[in-house]
Amino acid sequence: MKTSSKKTRASTQIVNVNGVEIGGDKFTVIAGPCSIEGPEQFQTTAEGVKSSGAVLLRGGIWKLRTSATTFQGLGSDSFSFIREVCKKTGLGLVSEVTDARQIEELHDVVHMYQVGSRNMHNYALLKELGKTNKPILLKRGFAALIDEWIKAAEYITNGGNNQVILCERGIRTFETATRNTLDLNAVAYAKRMTSLPVIVDPSHAVGISELVPDLALAAAAAGADGIIVEVHPNPAEALSDGQQALTLQEFSLLMKKLDRVLNALDRGLQRPPEMSL
Amino acid sequence: MKTSSKKTRASTQIVNVNGVEIGGDKFTVIAGPCSIEGPEQFQTTAEGVKSSGAVLLRGGIWKLRTSATTFQGLGSDSFSFIREVCKKTGLGLVSEVTDARQIEELHDVVHMYQVGSRNMHNYALLKELGKTNKPILLKRGFAALIDEWIKAAEYITNGGNNQVILCERGIRTFETATRNTLDLNAVAYAKRMTSLPVIVDPSHAVGISELVPDLALAAAAAGADGIIVEVHPNPAEALSDGQQALTLQEFSLLMKKLDRVLNALDRGLQRPPEMSL
Amino acid sequence: MKTSSKKTRASTQIVNVNGVEIGGDKFTVIAGPCSIEGPEQFQTTAEGVKSSGAVLLRGGIWKLRTSATTFQGLGSDSFSFIREVCKKTGLGLVSEVTDARQIEELHDVVHMYQVGSRNMHNYALLKELGKTNKPILLKRGFAALIDEWIKAAEYITNGGNNQVILCERGIRTFETATRNTLDLNAVAYAKRMTSLPVIVDPSHAVGISELVPDLALAAAAAGADGIIVEVHPNPAEALSDGQQALTLQEFSLLMKKLDRVLNALDRGLQRPPEMSL
Amino acid sequence: MKTSSKKTRASTQIVNVNGVEIGGDKFTVIAGPCSIEGPEQFQTTAEGVKSSGAVLLRGGIWKLRTSATTFQGLGSDSFSFIREVCKKTGLGLVSEVTDARQIEELHDVVHMYQVGSRNMHNYALLKELGKTNKPILLKRGFAALIDEWIKAAEYITNGGNNQVILCERGIRTFETATRNTLDLNAVAYAKRMTSLPVIVDPSHAVGISELVPDLALAAAAAGADGIIVEVHPNPAEALSDGQQALTLQEFSLLMKKLDRVLNALDRGLQRPPEMSL
Repeated sequence: MKTSSKKTRASTQIVNVNGVEIGGDKFTVIAGPCSIEGPEQFQTTAEGVKSSGAVLLRGGIWKLRTSATTFQGLGSDSFSFIREVCKKTGLGLVSEVTDARQIEELHDVVHMYQVGSRNMHNYALLKELGKTNKPILLKRGFAALIDEWIKAAEYITNGGNNQVILCERGIRTFETATRNTLDLNAVAYAKRMTSLPVIVDPSHAVGISELVPDLALAAAAAGADGIIVEVHPNPAEALSDGQQALTLQEFSLLMKKLDRVLNALDRGLQRPPEMSL
Repeated sequence: MKTSSKKTRASTQIVNVNGVEIGGDKFTVIAGPCSIEGPEQFQTTAEGVKSSGAVLLRGGIWKLRTSATTFQGLGSDSFSFIREVCKKTGLGLVSEVTDARQIEELHDVVHMYQVGSRNMHNYALLKELGKTNKPILLKRGFAALIDEWIKAAEYITNGGNNQVILCERGIRTFETATRNTLDLNAVAYAKRMTSLPVIVDPSHAVGISELVPDLALAAAAAGADGIIVEVHPNPAEALSDGQQALTLQEFSLLMKKLDRVLNALDRGLQRPPEMSL
Repeated sequence: MKTSSKKTRASTQIVNVNGVEIGGDKFTVIAGPCSIEGPEQFQTTAEGVKSSGAVLLRGGIWKLRTSATTFQGLGSDSFSFIREVCKKTGLGLVSEVTDARQIEELHDVVHMYQVGSRNMHNYALLKELGKTNKPILLKRGFAALIDEWIKAAEYITNGGNNQVILCERGIRTFETATRNTLDLNAVAYAKRMTSLPVIVDPSHAVGISELVPDLALAAAAAGADGIIVEVHPNPAEALSDGQQALTLQEFSLLMKKLDRVLNALDRGLQRPPEMSL
Repeated sequence: MKTSSKKTRASTQIVNVNGVEIGGDKFTVIAGPCSIEGPEQFQTTAEGVKSSGAVLLRGGIWKLRTSATTFQGLGSDSFSFIREVCKKTGLGLVSEVTDARQIEELHDVVHMYQVGSRNMHNYALLKELGKTNKPILLKRGFAALIDEWIKAAEYITNGGNNQVILCERGIRTFETATRNTLDLNAVAYAKRMTSLPVIVDPSHAVGISELVPDLALAAAAAGADGIIVEVHPNPAEALSDGQQALTLQEFSLLMKKLDRVLNALDRGLQRPPEMSL
């Protein structure tokens, strides 16, 4: 491996999402439901994760599902209550864009566009995102080489948008006991090969809620710049991916442990925008 | 495996592309260059593969490349000479659509839209193609389960377009000696699990021209409905994927062997539209 | 790929097993049960596969099983009736050696030692087999690179035993609809990279009996030197791997098709030793 | 996942290696060279890793190498100086057994037998180890399912030897930038599915020394019971695997960080036997 001569773990490229600076010494936690299912579910989750220390929200508006007949998300009907929740909590939203034609529609709702694993190779979409002025969370394709992932980011940055965050979310391997195989090698490797921040999605990477905290802590110890994690007030009733969502209580406990591990490594949790004033 | 009670290998769903019926007892050969590089290259290839028995042409107009800085195809400048070559030879064209916004633009140039491996999970694109009236060649994602591939086809057929052909083009595995790993298990399996025709792309599946004929013959013996194969008048000077393209002579020799193997299995090569009159 | 300048598909190294020469123009079919379960089952199978044209028998004596509590084979109790069946039919036996200490014990029972997929990397065993004077069937490890497979063969040939046959039996990939993924790329590749014969085990490679004939035909068309295939008089009652065994009738039908495909490629089925006199 | 009702992370089964108890709350660090290359190299490494807090030594005596012509280890010539180094430092040795016939020979040299990744499926070897009275370090096969790994351990425990430690060392995937893909999902999963201790080999898992500390810290945070890590006084001159070995200085720095991360999680580094008196 020929790595750059960077001596510190901090990224050269700091990405600012709604006032939260990602890629520096602090560890950023993005949390929320897989799918935004309604005003009550989203608000309860948002307030809950905020009180535990999350600084950005996640939540799917249009879902990419393997089958055309399963729940596909609320779509634009949810925009007004989403904006309200973001305003109340002061937290920005990360949500997936599954089609270039959604970019404009989502522009005033999301604070960072997410490119999902299945679209990492959708270069037409990446080029369009390169023309926007919002940060992009680029998930690694579930079978993408690290090198292809970095090159996919260049489809965005070549368009003039340098605000890209890489997200490792598990790769597809022969192992089937867990949903995917979390590849922390890739995190350590990509941190040295690019100047972009690298975060981890432990929820999709393992797919079993009981194991998510262990892997979130591992991501922090391995040097990731943050995590994006699924939290649901009542995982048993979630419309998608409930088996991998943490409860608000489990999330709260995880945050306490993360704080201690990060401190042990001379880092710390990112504070929310208003608290950093 | 619970397969349907189909007793013959023929597909229930016959797909008609420019007069060529795919999915019956005959074996369909689609051939042409990876990228359409200019009038001369395309016409020479088209005439050459036609004289050996190909009944449809392939050729990339916009290329999806891992790197944003490599040759990305001629684009719309090539439309007029492409139409001329198709008219002269009487052969239809299969070409990749990499973005929903290209569907309309390509409509009068191509006879079948191809969805590439990297876009198999691009459900937004698949839904748009479901609204068109042209056949779709759906390549398997290089890390897609057979089940996901079949479900992706349903994103198209649910929109009302039943003219879908599945194409196995090699999957990504730990092996690196060959470009991908051709999965003929998937061909035999998908033939029993769906009513759609299933063809094979041996060129991408192995990535080494010397090995392409052996795997094309294997695809025929395994029961595939056809192949789509890369041929170039001068592979050493191809602008993309030259190492996996057959010369016109190699293609001609392959066609003779295919004919004999298919006859041994009580099948045969598809004849071109005009010859079947 | 830098291949040797071999112009014909025949192997340089011909391996003689009980009078059957493997690696020349003829295609060798080895058939029999997964496990030898008793005198009646083995004799019925042996006579059945012989009458359809198999020239060597396969059959497990000690089975390597993932779980220590499943059927592990009959062991040495079966030696005397095995010898009798081989004598009556005139066919040699291929059986797996799972431990260096079995080499001597099996010496007078088997005509070719088989190294199973899980032992391809067991170099201690390979070195011992290099000191024997019997041919070795070396199955590819289910996650072995082609290069590692060829190097494993050198652990045997370096000891002075050049009678090695490579056997592709499917690799482990992300796909779970079939037992393994048959890698015919590897067959075409290994044929050009080594002087050793290369055969295919379609039974383990796909694991679903209905699909085995299609893949056996594909192996022949791809240029393999033969197949080793599981056949059982009553697959539903087999003590191991019944779901992938052909009945005697299915095997007979496959042999007829193989004969026709091979003739179409100017090859043919290997004749049994006594018939070649 | 149906996990047992264990509420704590400690293993039910504590494994005692030369006075070091593995599987309790403490984190065990095993360190040393890939291959034992001579008295000086081994003693320097042993004293160095001991002074930084390692409580057991690792070191290969017979090496399993993909190629038969590379360095295969010093073998029995090294026994006397190995015993001397163990005696001087008071540390036990973990070394690989590659053949059942080595079990007896190694008996008085090693304190724990290691089964390497390539031998995890060598059930003949596992059964023999089940009859011994020494602890066994069972590395996961590089393409073994977690379930197969656990079942392989039962081949040992069924023989009466319950002193088994599982070791995750990276799996083979499509990614080639790193040597293997460290699967910490498997560590978290196996901790809940078995009562055996689970440790991690970050050196083989990533294969790039610069990345080893990040992954060792991740293993600790994920709940592993320890690590086994390659350290060499002069990695550039190592006879095997130098590119993944830490220097003594790098190892010392890692130990300090491990100590802090473990303390943050209410655990701590295992103290050496003599220091626990």
